Amino acid sequence: MSELSVVGTRRPKVDAVAKVTGRARYTDDLRAPRMLAAKLLRSSRTHARIVRLDVSHALALPGVHAVLTGADLPIAYGILPVSQDEHALALEKVRYAGEPVAAVAADDEETAERALALVEVEYEDLPAVMSIEQALAVGAAAVHEERPTNVHRAAALEFGDVDGGFEAADHVREDIFFVHGNTHVPLEEHATLAEWDGSKLTMHTSTQVPHYLQRALERVLELPTSRIRVIVPALGGGFGGKCDPFSHELTAAKLAIVTGRPVKIALTREEVFYAHRGRHPVLMRVRSGFARDGRITAMEFRCLLDGGAYGSYGAASMLYTGALQTTTYAIPAYRFEGLRAYTTKPPCGPKRGHGTPQPRFALECHLDKVAEELGLDPIELRRRNLVEPFSWTVNHLRITSCALEECIDRVVEASGFEEKRGRLPHGRGVGFAVSAYMSGAGLPIYANELPQSEVQIKVDRGGGVTVYSMATDIGQGSDSVLAYLTAEVLGLEPADVAVVSADTDLTPIDLGSYSSRVTFMAGNAAVEAAERMRALVLGAVAEQLGLPLDRLVLRGGRALDPGDPESGVPWVEAIRIAAASRGPLVTAGSYRPPDLAGPYKGAGVGPSPAYSFSAAVVEVDCDPETGEVRVEKVWVAHDVGRALNPLLVEGQIEGSVYMALGEALLENHAFRDGVHLGPSLLDYKTPTALDMPEVVSIVVESDDPEGPFGAKEVGQGVLLPVIPAVANAVHDALGVRVDEVPITADKVIRALRQGRVGPKRLPDFPFRDAVRVDPPAQWRAAP
Amino acid sequence: MSELSVVGTRRPKVDAVAKVTGRARYTDDLRAPRMLAAKLLRSSRTHARIVRLDVSHALALPGVHAVLTGADLPIAYGILPVSQDEHALALEKVRYAGEPVAAVAADDEETAERALALVEVEYEDLPAVMSIEQALAVGAAAVHEERPTNVHRAAALEFGDVDGGFEAADHVREDIFFVHGNTHVPLEEHATLAEWDGSKLTMHTSTQVPHYLQRALERVLELPTSRIRVIVPALGGGFGGKCDPFSHELTAAKLAIVTGRPVKIALTREEVFYAHRGRHPVLMRVRSGFARDGRITAMEFRCLLDGGAYGSYGAASMLYTGALQTTTYAIPAYRFEGLRAYTTKPPCGPKRGHGTPQPRFALECHLDKVAEELGLDPIELRRRNLVEPFSWTVNHLRITSCALEECIDRVVEASGFEEKRGRLPHGRGVGFAVSAYMSGAGLPIYANELPQSEVQIKVDRGGGVTVYSMATDIGQGSDSVLAYLTAEVLGLEPADVAVVSADTDLTPIDLGSYSSRVTFMAGNAAVEAAERMRALVLGAVAEQLGLPLDRLVLRGGRALDPGDPESGVPWVEAIRIAAASRGPLVTAGSYRPPDLAGPYKGAGVGPSPAYSFSAAVVEVDCDPETGEVRVEKVWVAHDVGRALNPLLVEGQIEGSVYMALGEALLENHAFRDGVHLGPSLLDYKTPTALDMPEVVSIVVESDDPEGPFGAKEVGQGVLLPVIPAVANAVHDALGVRVDEVPITADKVIRALRQGRVGPKRLPDFPFRDAVRVDPPAQWRAAP
Repeated sequence: MSELSVVGTRRPKVDAVAKVTGRARYTDDLRAPRMLAAKLLRSSRTHARIVRLDVSHALALPGVHAVLTGADLPIAYGILPVSQDEHALALEKVRYAGEPVAAVAADDEETAERALALVEVEYEDLPAVMSIEQALAVGAAAVHEERPTNVHRAAALEFGDVDGGFEAADHVREDIFFVHGNTHVPLEEHATLAEWDGSKLTMHTSTQVPHYLQRALERVLELPTSRIRVIVPALGGGFGGKCDPFSHELTAAKLAIVTGRPVKIALTREEVFYAHRGRHPVLMRVRSGFARDGRITAMEFRCLLDGGAYGSYGAASMLYTGALQTTTYAIPAYRFEGLRAYTTKPPCGPKRGHGTPQPRFALECHLDKVAEELGLDPIELRRRNLVEPFSWTVNHLRITSCALEECIDRVVEASGFEEKRGRLPHGRGVGFAVSAYMSGAGLPIYANELPQSEVQIKVDRGGGVTVYSMATDIGQGSDSVLAYLTAEVLGLEPADVAVVSADTDLTPIDLGSYSSRVTFMAGNAAVEAAERMRALVLGAVAEQLGLPLDRLVLRGGRALDPGDPESGVPWVEAIRIAAASRGPLVTAGSYRPPDLAGPYKGAGVGPSPAYSFSAAVVEVDCDPETGEVRVEKVWVAHDVGRALNPLLVEGQIEGSVYMALGEALLENHAFRDGVHLGPSLLDYKTPTALDMPEVVSIVVESDDPEGPFGAKEVGQGVLLPVIPAVANAVHDALGVRVDEVPITADKVIRALRQGRVGPKRLPDFPFRDAVRVDPPAQWRAAP
Repeated sequence: MSELSVVGTRRPKVDAVAKVTGRARYTDDLRAPRMLAAKLLRSSRTHARIVRLDVSHALALPGVHAVLTGADLPIAYGILPVSQDEHALALEKVRYAGEPVAAVAADDEETAERALALVEVEYEDLPAVMSIEQALAVGAAAVHEERPTNVHRAAALEFGDVDGGFEAADHVREDIFFVHGNTHVPLEEHATLAEWDGSKLTMHTSTQVPHYLQRALERVLELPTSRIRVIVPALGGGFGGKCDPFSHELTAAKLAIVTGRPVKIALTREEVFYAHRGRHPVLMRVRSGFARDGRITAMEFRCLLDGGAYGSYGAASMLYTGALQTTTYAIPAYRFEGLRAYTTKPPCGPKRGHGTPQPRFALECHLDKVAEELGLDPIELRRRNLVEPFSWTVNHLRITSCALEECIDRVVEASGFEEKRGRLPHGRGVGFAVSAYMSGAGLPIYANELPQSEVQIKVDRGGGVTVYSMATDIGQGSDSVLAYLTAEVLGLEPADVAVVSADTDLTPIDLGSYSSRVTFMAGNAAVEAAERMRALVLGAVAEQLGLPLDRLVLRGGRALDPGDPESGVPWVEAIRIAAASRGPLVTAGSYRPPDLAGPYKGAGVGPSPAYSFSAAVVEVDCDPETGEVRVEKVWVAHDVGRALNPLLVEGQIEGSVYMALGEALLENHAFRDGVHLGPSLLDYKTPTALDMPEVVSIVVESDDPEGPFGAKEVGQGVLLPVIPAVANAVHDALGVRVDEVPITADKVIRALRQGRVGPKRLPDFPFRDAVRVDPPAQWRAAP
């Protein structure tokens, strides 16, 4: 790998200048001739039947072009095939305050707003269902009347001999935790611009997943996908919050069709808080058995998720809360019971770390408690249970490259954790945790037999290279990564590579930017396409110039024999030679992960072709008088496989730490009487740059055999260990436990008074007997 | 061919709705944030040395961001490698009134205009050179001082034994003709929007040839082509007038780089008249020898072109005036002498029919005169000399399919020509002529060894097809044709096909929309790409479903065995099967014409893989009192090979007739004291819809073996015979000859007085002895 010239170098993103100079155009920057502005009327009630809905006065207002209600878009949709439970506009009843009920297209936003006020809605209130406990209570109001209970999805799975494991344990411990909901807060508010030309819909929109949106539009509008073009302009942050097809997208499309005019809907910041699809509130119980030496003998996890009113990706969120605990620790027997309840709140969905920060918080705090009880060093306890590289977990996950131990070593060393733990002055403390995350899901949501990512490459006569990919650059730098990888393979500079992305007409399939899948999957597809282009060009050059093919490489803008730097021809000459004998210089590559899913229902959630690993140490300074927790410094080591651009990797690490600290200490997506408590950037507590501590980013490379140039995930995984590390640090500082996130000052004060803050019990729910699943054949029980 | 379902059907263009509803966005409709407006200062002198050029006051005007002069863009360019004689802004001297001298970028157009007035230019006048005669006169001022004469290019070629042919002739006749210049008058004025992001130039512009513009930008700006993206938005008519890289494009690009802001230049209608690049004024002498039976024994053509101040495509224009006479008549011996002179007028270039309407006018009028002298019916004279299908001409042109005889039959029959000729009342008459035109040039301007057209096709998972082609839809319907051809091959509807065109980043090479090359060349590339896609899909389907591959077809949105309409699978299913086993559904096709150029210098101009043929009859009503010529009706038969969409073919025929009538009767791109006589749509006489006679379009199909589904040229050829048919009709009506186009009323009156109007002699020019070229081996002398 010493020959790499682009991969591994620090350089700005390809769109950096456009972003920082304001030249990049986001969806809301777009204007179309004759464009109408549309607005959504949102329910003022938390849970209510719509008794009367009269839009006639709104429609009569001069400047109003169309008004839609649920009856105009009657087809249910949802991103997962299992959760087609949502409508673009409420049908018959509303299930959360803020749910769209009607849509108005008018000459301008002001007229649309005035028209909204003229829509007459008569509601008949129904009881609100605002928590897991309320949802599961006997006699609870039904959020979805056609369902017998408020349970959206439930699962119970058992891998290996759990009861035997507990019986064999010298020590068993059980803890209960709660994580409140929080939301993504992307800087760009969602916006969409729909245009209909009489036979084809073109939609510019701030989505992370153009392909899934196209599918939802296909279903709801009953149009073939060949008549639907989804384009993503510059996008200002997603974090999972722009993965769902949204009401404003479906209604803007329908309004464009109905009016024959371009229609834009740009959500306000307040609306973004209701659009949500963020972190689920999760109530958890973790119970583990340990041998005297600290080796885990069995583990049991029960997770109850507060899903909000609709399915979204929630079935997956629920399964994720159980899937990845085994990726850091070699757990020989594992039972998971999960449940997602419907409540009358905005639906929850995927947020950075999808489904896994909550159980990771529980697990890593639980392990610290176990270590304390066993009298073991918390680091040592973890070391004794570490997962091995190139192994299988009991729940059928394939671990490949894994430098978790190195991450632990590096972060412990850099932070001086062992010297500090238990030895800092009262109020100061250090905490530790580890985690792992996926490099894309092993199973796509649709069409398992097809590649998840395809990339197309064209070289033009002047030597310019165009890379086509449907992956969406949501700020994470995926356009840059595709340019780096292609440039590396072709021996060019990234500036010679134009990346065309996220346009369903122009670009071949990519499932979108979620689950940290783009670098790994679209990246692998790009490498394959580029390698095919390289083979094509070098083959032609070798033939034409009579050079030995096995010695030719593309490097520094030349096709040459590296043993003779004067040999060969410049790239532009090489591609002309190739075009003359090979025809059009167009290649494509694709990536389909190996089929990794275990033999059980729900096995599609969790497997990934490669996992990243991370370890974090957090140092805090807590004020015992006020309860305020100040994070002084964070050390993170992350096994990224290979850092394609260390600058971007560090950016992702710092961004994850930032988001983790917000979740750990400040953010709470909370409601009172169904209404969000602080739906604005003034009220919702998210950290500012001034709140950020120093972050020491340690990039660890394990060179994954299947990753593009060895690369794995980096965008999400680092968030996971930071939250429990904060909680563990607070315990080290004050000797008390806050088992409920966020760890706000009031909770710290209460904990100082009573020793612990956190939930005490889980509501009863009669989980069915867990489905017993044999560990995979490749799995080896601990010796 | 009975199985065709898209090809041959009448249907609107794919962009018809967008165009007629005003939804289509042209370059001047585009706005970019922080966009500046730029204007060009144009020379007020016809021919002058620039003694002083002071832009300091202009630059000091508030709101002005940059001022450029020739020194800022010192690299010469030109579209043909032989004619790199132009600069974006005049260097040292100006060579025509209207030549750009300086460029200003300002906050808005008004400020830019005010700044132009502040640019101080001191000129030292030089003698104007306003005609061929003046250019060639002894002691004429030199338009380009570094050249010994004002001759831009000259050629003298002789094919076969011309002197022998004349000696063997029973009859020899010589005529002299003149065609005045005229211009394209596209409805859309040229506009360009340049954006520079610090490392890459993106230019939206109204060009017919993005690839050539990219090359000029590469040269003048010294940027690699990978950093130059040229995109053509909707374009409102080209007709050859948007084939050159223009000053406003090069200066807008430079201004964008200098200011770091988007820069738009939109020409005014007056500026478009000076941008020009239209029809050359041509002075011609044609001399032929005939046997008693009317068979041509030899022909000699001398053409003197008034080129204006710069080369443009003029070297090709000059050669075209000699090349295609042999494509309609089997001329056994042929001599051509051509010359293009520089004059101090806006440069001439390609206009619909490039280089050939002038000699065709001369030839077809000359033949009528010969027929009269020989006492032969003019149709019969032509019939006796017709070129044969699948033959070679004496000047090395390969004729393939040719239904010229059928065109003559059909148009003579439909018009009742024989019954009318010489028999209508005085003042009324009919005229006849034939012609032929190319389906793209056999030789590209650059890089002979590479394909002229490549097309890339992608199929997405929902069945939508994307066709990528750099061909520019200039209103001729090339996007539509590519959609029809692809849909036909894949058994789909054109609406299932998205065509992405004319974007140098997104689309593979196509040399552009000129020489009637797109349907034939890009069309063939699209068919090849689609056939490869079909093979890929059907191969996978046959394999998966166990069906015999040789019986599978794609038709009506299914892959099926046509013998069993219930067999097979829908297209969407078929492509999913294919993607699962074959990977990304991406194919490419290309077209490179066979190497047809003869073994002599200049042989690249004229050869085409296929020629269209046409015959026209025009009926006129002339007022002997006023001289006014009114065209009553036009009958045209055109051999298009195959009408891919008869509606578009008829549109092209009618458009060509319209343009031909304007040139024949009204248009004159004339100057007085260097200044255009009528640079506006009010003053420049172009026909309106009210001036249009009835046009009978007869589409003749000869199924060319190399054309896509048999198709050949249709966009230009029909213009050619109409002009001489008008002149011949005027002669039939009034018995006098106007050998000078346009045939304006004053000329008709003068002809009625003196029997003929037209030039009497050619200026002396010492052509070198013609290069003697042997006819091609495949050529057969007349029996």
